[in-house]
Amino acid sequence: MRFTQLFTRTLREVAKEETSRNAQLLIRAGYVNRLMAGAYSYLPLGLIVLNKIENIVREEMNAIGAQEVLMPALQPREIWETTKRWDSVDVLYKLDGQGEKDLALGPTHEEVVTPLVTGYVQSWRDLPQAVYQVQTKFRNEARPKAGLLRGREFRMKDMYSFHIDEADLSAFYEKTIPAYQNVYARCGIGDRTLLTFASGGMFSKYSHEFQTLTEYGEDTIYRMPGGKVALNQEVLDDPAALAEIIPNYKPGDEKQLESMRAIEVGNIFKLSTRFPDAFNAGYADKSGAKQKIWMGCYGIGPSRLMGTVVECLADDKGIVWPEALAPAKFHLVSLARDEADVAAVDAIYNTMREKGITVLYDDRADVQTGQKLNDADLLGMPHRLIVSPRTLKTNQLEYKSRTSDEVQMLTLDQVLAL
Amino acid sequence: MRFTQLFTRTLREVAKEETSRNAQLLIRAGYVNRLMAGAYSYLPLGLIVLNKIENIVREEMNAIGAQEVLMPALQPREIWETTKRWDSVDVLYKLDGQGEKDLALGPTHEEVVTPLVTGYVQSWRDLPQAVYQVQTKFRNEARPKAGLLRGREFRMKDMYSFHIDEADLSAFYEKTIPAYQNVYARCGIGDRTLLTFASGGMFSKYSHEFQTLTEYGEDTIYRMPGGKVALNQEVLDDPAALAEIIPNYKPGDEKQLESMRAIEVGNIFKLSTRFPDAFNAGYADKSGAKQKIWMGCYGIGPSRLMGTVVECLADDKGIVWPEALAPAKFHLVSLARDEADVAAVDAIYNTMREKGITVLYDDRADVQTGQKLNDADLLGMPHRLIVSPRTLKTNQLEYKSRTSDEVQMLTLDQVLAL
Repeated sequence: MRFTQLFTRTLREVAKEETSRNAQLLIRAGYVNRLMAGAYSYLPLGLIVLNKIENIVREEMNAIGAQEVLMPALQPREIWETTKRWDSVDVLYKLDGQGEKDLALGPTHEEVVTPLVTGYVQSWRDLPQAVYQVQTKFRNEARPKAGLLRGREFRMKDMYSFHIDEADLSAFYEKTIPAYQNVYARCGIGDRTLLTFASGGMFSKYSHEFQTLTEYGEDTIYRMPGGKVALNQEVLDDPAALAEIIPNYKPGDEKQLESMRAIEVGNIFKLSTRFPDAFNAGYADKSGAKQKIWMGCYGIGPSRLMGTVVECLADDKGIVWPEALAPAKFHLVSLARDEADVAAVDAIYNTMREKGITVLYDDRADVQTGQKLNDADLLGMPHRLIVSPRTLKTNQLEYKSRTSDEVQMLTLDQVLAL
Repeated sequence: MRFTQLFTRTLREVAKEETSRNAQLLIRAGYVNRLMAGAYSYLPLGLIVLNKIENIVREEMNAIGAQEVLMPALQPREIWETTKRWDSVDVLYKLDGQGEKDLALGPTHEEVVTPLVTGYVQSWRDLPQAVYQVQTKFRNEARPKAGLLRGREFRMKDMYSFHIDEADLSAFYEKTIPAYQNVYARCGIGDRTLLTFASGGMFSKYSHEFQTLTEYGEDTIYRMPGGKVALNQEVLDDPAALAEIIPNYKPGDEKQLESMRAIEVGNIFKLSTRFPDAFNAGYADKSGAKQKIWMGCYGIGPSRLMGTVVECLADDKGIVWPEALAPAKFHLVSLARDEADVAAVDAIYNTMREKGITVLYDDRADVQTGQKLNDADLLGMPHRLIVSPRTLKTNQLEYKSRTSDEVQMLTLDQVLAL
């Protein structure tokens, strides 16, 4: 990709309403644009990052046997009345249709997926099933100001599983934990993302959140001494839960827990039989008797994950993308002025592209060196290359990793081997 | 993909509210599921088809230099008041936000893309630009009953281009015509899709529609004798327009035009400077003087295209997918009963998959041969293979193309070469 072919440009500052660090950096770098509070456009480089995150999520969900679907955002009022949630979900956007009764804009899809999947279930042979979608969701948030971390409109992977009994649900639920951890590891935040015990609400003893540690987090969690497991405030306030979760628990042990700020990047719930029951769904067991269907749900927000990666990995110069998410592996800065040198840098760019290597090529002629280098830091590709009249004379490129200050002179072959 | 791992199943009949042929076939085959009038879920095989169409559209838009973005569906009332369309677009879904003024759900994105793109434009050097998105759109249709052809919620590729003057806009506009024709050709309906002159509305003398001929179409168009070009009713009623479009036009020549039923599968418009003007956008010309920005818009609906392909190519047995859209190239029907034969068919399936060939494998043990063959026709993969105890004895597979009645016995190597 050539800089001169992008319609975006980097910005020195952003509108003052934008107070979140993740959105400030993403807007300045030209990854996203703010339409209003809680609603952003993804610009060409930002959409590449979002797509990479969504494809990682898809791969990990497919690997545990889930099937991808795409459900409507518009949902009829009647299905929300069936589950008695029309009046109780306060973030539900409601709207009037012309020829239809009232409609909701889906913040979640239990009301759609439950009749959808159970409609194809007849007997125990048709279970278990797990389906997911990667879709745009809507929440009527009063004053969203956390950038991509909390949107009125956001991207969501929501998965739902259906089972013959609680044991089968639990077995699948346990499989989703490493799948989720794989997602965070591949997005470069695995080492700081903790499996966190949370209240199970009315359906189950516990649910789990995945919480990514960062001083910019909205949540407070409590880490088990030395561990990768944490618990949230609800669980901290419940001595019976503490006794179950903390090994060899004695009252007062919770004082050893370390309180930390974090961003919730995923959550998994056992929903019991509530939603299939509401739709009168069931399956025939081996004797032909009708049995209840057990259900779980599993959420992870790719747009929130994108904002979280920025919050966690950015430094004071700008964004730092892990290689798996970066819009390009290399940021190629050209300092060429005369025609022959420009042709030489073009040739390097073309060689790299032909090898299938992704390169963001700063080919701008009218921009000073200092700004080009600042933009490279702001944009955050993992590897920076500078080609100048001086480096061309030695047939080398000046290489720097985004996260190191060390500069090396490399041949193109050495660069290609990185 | 194994049949036994899909949560869907084929259905003999669909609910009586579903009167459109495309949705009836797609629902029966398990590609989509109806949530309400004008809103469908895409099931695993249907989502593959939709994604294939969307990727074809992306490739053709990228090839003419357009950049992909993703804009919000939620749009603030103020931008629609800026363009004076808040009250005039009758299919606009409107909703109340908590902390924000009124919101719209985007049926189109001129109000978002115009300030977005022109916000980065300073001088003539920053133009032209073309951006597009593939996104879910919403229209408050009173009584949608055409299946995927007209939805309250549907998938749309909407592209917008920005130019220094009308000539540059026209040059880009002309480039989009073959790009659109490539999309239809790759989707298997190129030979029946006509470039159709339509009224330009208030912005331009003409716009163009792409109309796909089928007796199930909602539109009537008028074909030029023997040609690949047509015109719609608005143009037919305008003698001055006829005189321009029909070579050597003499009054009465329009009586030679052939009236045909068709589905509109795309449209392209020159929008003049209306939207950039409304947002007070402009660019500095070479002398530094502020000039108006010219704009075009270009729509194509992947979900409608999916419905159109079904309407056009299906026969009385079911859907017929072109190879470029089919969820799998082969439909492998196993008639194996005993364990050794099942293992032999599994081995064929695995060999094909290892070669990177996509196969829908009907591995159901409890389904009769007749239903398996009916399902193969209903689902519409381009190539059907049957493996039975009899064919296994001769080390062959029974091959039939979906669109031919001729059956051939082929070796696996011959199948792999297809």
